[in-house]
Amino acid sequence: MRTLENSVLSTMMRTPLTLSHLLERAGKIFPTSEIVTRMPDRSLHRYTYADFYRRSRALAEALQKAGMQPGDRVATLSWNTSAHLEAYFGIPVAGGVLHTLNLRLHPTDIAYIINHAEDRFLIVDDVLIKLYEAIKDHINVEKVIVVPLTGKPVPEGLTSYEDFLATATGDFSYPDLPEDTALGMCYTSGTTGKPKGVLYSHRSMILHSLGSALPDALNLGQSDVLTPVVPMFHVMAWGLPFTGIMVGCKIAMPGPHLDAVNLLDLYESEQVSKTAGVPTIWMGVLQALQKEPTRWTKLLPMEMVVGGAAAPEAMIRAYDTFNLKVVHAWGMTEMSPLGTVSRIKQNLAGSDPDILYALRACQGMPMPMVEVRAMNEHGEVPWDGHTMGELEVRGPWVAQSYFKQESERDKWSADGWFRTGDVVTISSEGYVKITDRTKDLIKSGGEWISSLDLENLLMGHPAVREAAVIAVTHPRWDERPLAAIVLKEGASVTTEELRAYLEPKVAKFWIPDAFVFVDEIPRTSTGKFLKMQLRDKFKDWNWE
Amino acid sequence: MRTLENSVLSTMMRTPLTLSHLLERAGKIFPTSEIVTRMPDRSLHRYTYADFYRRSRALAEALQKAGMQPGDRVATLSWNTSAHLEAYFGIPVAGGVLHTLNLRLHPTDIAYIINHAEDRFLIVDDVLIKLYEAIKDHINVEKVIVVPLTGKPVPEGLTSYEDFLATATGDFSYPDLPEDTALGMCYTSGTTGKPKGVLYSHRSMILHSLGSALPDALNLGQSDVLTPVVPMFHVMAWGLPFTGIMVGCKIAMPGPHLDAVNLLDLYESEQVSKTAGVPTIWMGVLQALQKEPTRWTKLLPMEMVVGGAAAPEAMIRAYDTFNLKVVHAWGMTEMSPLGTVSRIKQNLAGSDPDILYALRACQGMPMPMVEVRAMNEHGEVPWDGHTMGELEVRGPWVAQSYFKQESERDKWSADGWFRTGDVVTISSEGYVKITDRTKDLIKSGGEWISSLDLENLLMGHPAVREAAVIAVTHPRWDERPLAAIVLKEGASVTTEELRAYLEPKVAKFWIPDAFVFVDEIPRTSTGKFLKMQLRDKFKDWNWE
Repeated sequence: MRTLENSVLSTMMRTPLTLSHLLERAGKIFPTSEIVTRMPDRSLHRYTYADFYRRSRALAEALQKAGMQPGDRVATLSWNTSAHLEAYFGIPVAGGVLHTLNLRLHPTDIAYIINHAEDRFLIVDDVLIKLYEAIKDHINVEKVIVVPLTGKPVPEGLTSYEDFLATATGDFSYPDLPEDTALGMCYTSGTTGKPKGVLYSHRSMILHSLGSALPDALNLGQSDVLTPVVPMFHVMAWGLPFTGIMVGCKIAMPGPHLDAVNLLDLYESEQVSKTAGVPTIWMGVLQALQKEPTRWTKLLPMEMVVGGAAAPEAMIRAYDTFNLKVVHAWGMTEMSPLGTVSRIKQNLAGSDPDILYALRACQGMPMPMVEVRAMNEHGEVPWDGHTMGELEVRGPWVAQSYFKQESERDKWSADGWFRTGDVVTISSEGYVKITDRTKDLIKSGGEWISSLDLENLLMGHPAVREAAVIAVTHPRWDERPLAAIVLKEGASVTTEELRAYLEPKVAKFWIPDAFVFVDEIPRTSTGKFLKMQLRDKFKDWNWE
Repeated sequence: MRTLENSVLSTMMRTPLTLSHLLERAGKIFPTSEIVTRMPDRSLHRYTYADFYRRSRALAEALQKAGMQPGDRVATLSWNTSAHLEAYFGIPVAGGVLHTLNLRLHPTDIAYIINHAEDRFLIVDDVLIKLYEAIKDHINVEKVIVVPLTGKPVPEGLTSYEDFLATATGDFSYPDLPEDTALGMCYTSGTTGKPKGVLYSHRSMILHSLGSALPDALNLGQSDVLTPVVPMFHVMAWGLPFTGIMVGCKIAMPGPHLDAVNLLDLYESEQVSKTAGVPTIWMGVLQALQKEPTRWTKLLPMEMVVGGAAAPEAMIRAYDTFNLKVVHAWGMTEMSPLGTVSRIKQNLAGSDPDILYALRACQGMPMPMVEVRAMNEHGEVPWDGHTMGELEVRGPWVAQSYFKQESERDKWSADGWFRTGDVVTISSEGYVKITDRTKDLIKSGGEWISSLDLENLLMGHPAVREAAVIAVTHPRWDERPLAAIVLKEGASVTTEELRAYLEPKVAKFWIPDAFVFVDEIPRTSTGKFLKMQLRDKFKDWNWE
């Protein structure tokens, strides 16, 4: 690559891409847009962007008054609420770093993460005080601010969020931040090793917001009503708080109530048009709809973005019967997180329905500014839809390192691409399809078997609720697949029936040699299958 | 404003925002998308993004082989065609600066602009060779490359575009460009003085493309079919060539055929869903539709973006009866150009139809990252929908200066905002409405005519003592110039003589449609023309 030395610079403004622009936009252009929160007692709290704007700026000012210095980390231990949204904006516009804590982790891990990040302040929902109490002796946080969601008095020695906001006088002025300044951080709960921190910048999050709202990505506009079900403590709720505020749409927050009935009630009462969450959540919502198909009659033809794990094609088909459109997206904590979204291209729109469903169930096409490639031992693999390789990505909202963790350099290629650990094929039309995680691939007699494909096929069987396929050591083939199956309530199926069901669909050597019926598949805090536990459990499986 | 000194930098990649990303995306993700061009003989030329990708890279390589250095300006004198699209990408990705020439200007002005920009290469459509011949003795361009749209042989001494592309071997590699590198330039034919050049950067154009495609801006996706009627020699066709390629949509180019029948035929045969142009063009298309309401029966419910001048509300209403949706946008050459788009907010959607039409006819809400304010002599005016002020804008795709023209600093406020010269109100919902344009300016068919230049020329005529040129409303061109003339004592001149006198000096469309002989021009106390009085006097001028 040649480098230019005497290129002409443009005459355009060098306006930094920072969050203060989005907050000012919220207050000035969209003062009447609504933000609704499902409170712990199930009541709905409502206010407008004008209120949100005033309170976010008050938080920014109060933090500065409390001594927050540029770059200080401010942690949140909170559900999806309007107060958490204030933290999303108030902390970064004052130069602080928003650090969202995953409340589903073990207290030991939460304490580790707070200490590793060197969090100086902590904002915690009053309904999560017990969790704080479980970690407080293991952390060193200067000030703990409690959001009184229930209205009950705040425990002694801690600061009420409302009292804290009241210390602001309204004369906040934005500090001048370079666009590479850190805006927020998330720790990724990897399956191995300690959690690793990713530091998003103002620039990366503004670019991610612009990219996310595009028609071929999440297609989000001012007329939408948005419900992020994906927690705000999980990869910044996929950036939706920023994207939503940027476009000025009404936002309906589920609070701590993530069960299917509460969600469906919220969708109906607030006329939600766009929502986002992991497959597990959508599985539950689908079951509720199927159980009571006439209960929610006023739902909009909502788009339900699914990510975090593969959405089974069967689920996408089932939702279509309810006039609800599942949109498959893929990303990672290291990617802000959005990388690909599966939308049907114009030239493919007339394809056979089965082909269209297969496309909708794959990870989709890269967003603008995100580059993808798949690598195997010979280099970059062709985009032919069948050659597998490890997916690598590059782009302005992709991490180039972890926070204070230089030992993890092997997560990046020598030429600077992020190695996702996902094994994929890429089609000639640019559709990325994950066939497995590198560590979950099954190598049988020198051939690769995709555990993910098998799981998706098995979950299409009418009797199967969940399926996890793992590699188990085999004396002759090195590894053979074993399928752990969770049946639907009241359903039954035999090993022979499952085998016969798979036979016309996959190569013969792909068919698992063992099917084990279990009560549940162990999961990570973010809802992904915890295959490590399964592997452990079945590591001495007797193939005879 | 405080400045942070020890803020924490993020760990995100510093991927520069450059055009090479969009070109690679076009070739890899959208190889099958189509680009269609209406050729001079009215036939339709078709090829795919794969062809476009290959040929754009060939142009980039050929330019480098021909000695193009980083920052060199490469001018184009071309209609909207696929070849022009190749220049839009091939020149900047090789480090050159794409300089689009307005072929409607007077040859003297075109020559001035080429010389001021110091253009080194020139690409010209063969159907525009006569225009090139009119300027060639006044410019100093190293190489002239002719695009053989008609298939006729290229004049001796000039290089055929196809031969030029054939010098490439296919081993082009992108130079490493910082994102602030100039990508392209446009000259604005302003009200006073010489044309002024704006230098867009790779960064500003990528951000403008992301912003433009958003659902609440132009709402452009891969499934759209896009026809930019706004010329590619006029503010980069509002950035649509970049935005369209970014989203991967089919593009149908009108070539030199901008008349209503050819456009409607193209819309119908290519199933266009999105088009953009100035009000004059849409007036013509509307008349054609009204004249033959059953001729074009297979049009899609297309969105027709209108900008460059105010779209009359009556036109928006009339198009609605044809199920065609006029979307009002506003911008300037200095703004890449998009600044505002008028979409109806959710909370206003239920308003009275008259209110909705008034909203659709105003300039609309600022796009993300674009800031607006209106200033009068007391400072910033309130957003109350009635207090007027001069519109000032700021943002990452707004110019901060002109190219080699430091004397124009008063176009920017002391604190760095661009002063648009438009007088506006801003409503409490963030809708911008232009109430008065820069007073002396005449906007005819989307093009600016400088009254001051005309006055100076007319006052050079031996029989003319004073001349004031004003804009008068015109049913087809929005506005046309009317010249009020005070003769010297004892002198006489006819309208025809004045017309003939101006003809060699200005573009044909600049010549006033009416010359009125008056005894004196009304003046202000400080001796300046009081044009308001003239406008009042002639506001009902009958152009017949």
